Amino acid sequence: MRKLLSEKEVEQQLTGVKGWQITNGKLQKEFLFQDFTRAFGFMTSVALIAESMNHHPEWRNVYNRVSIELSTHDLGGISNLDFQFASKVDQLSS
Amino acid sequence: MRKLLSEKEVEQQLTGVKGWQITNGKLQKEFLFQDFTRAFGFMTSVALIAESMNHHPEWRNVYNRVSIELSTHDLGGISNLDFQFASKVDQLSS
Repeated sequence: MRKLLSEKEVEQQLTGVKGWQITNGKLQKEFLFQDFTRAFGFMTSVALIAESMNHHPEWRNVYNRVSIELSTHDLGGISNLDFQFASKVDQLSS
Repeated sequence: MRKLLSEKEVEQQLTGVKGWQITNGKLQKEFLFQDFTRAFGFMTSVALIAESMNHHPEWRNVYNRVSIELSTHDLGGISNLDFQFASKVDQLSS
């Protein structure tokens, strides 16, 4: 079930994910890699998460940097799905 | 050979590539696809171009949209390499 989170719920959820922050109303994190090959390898993994969850990030890449922004457009804010997505992304490097 | 292009040379080169424009001093184009799978498939191809040319774009993706910005940082502007890159990207869909 997708559920829009209140400001307080977002704050609570933020304690459970490392390095993610709220930027412009979105759940955001920047990832740094050794080089472009590794950055794009990571992006490929994130793309598979996105497609399997049918939940797609706004993201950008410059060389070894990847910035991911998450929100749930049709609910108009940050939902539990965004935090699930963030956790799955973080599990990639664990 | 990499060569920084003058404003006039950039204008001339722009006539040879479709849909590319100068935005914030960078050579920019937005690509639209049917869905995320196709957009990311395109990005994978662009990543291979980038790595083979050792020239990496600033780019972003949201669902079926991909925006690519090209410039040659160490030359401080747009070079012939950026237009070579743009042509290679355009050839992907031809």
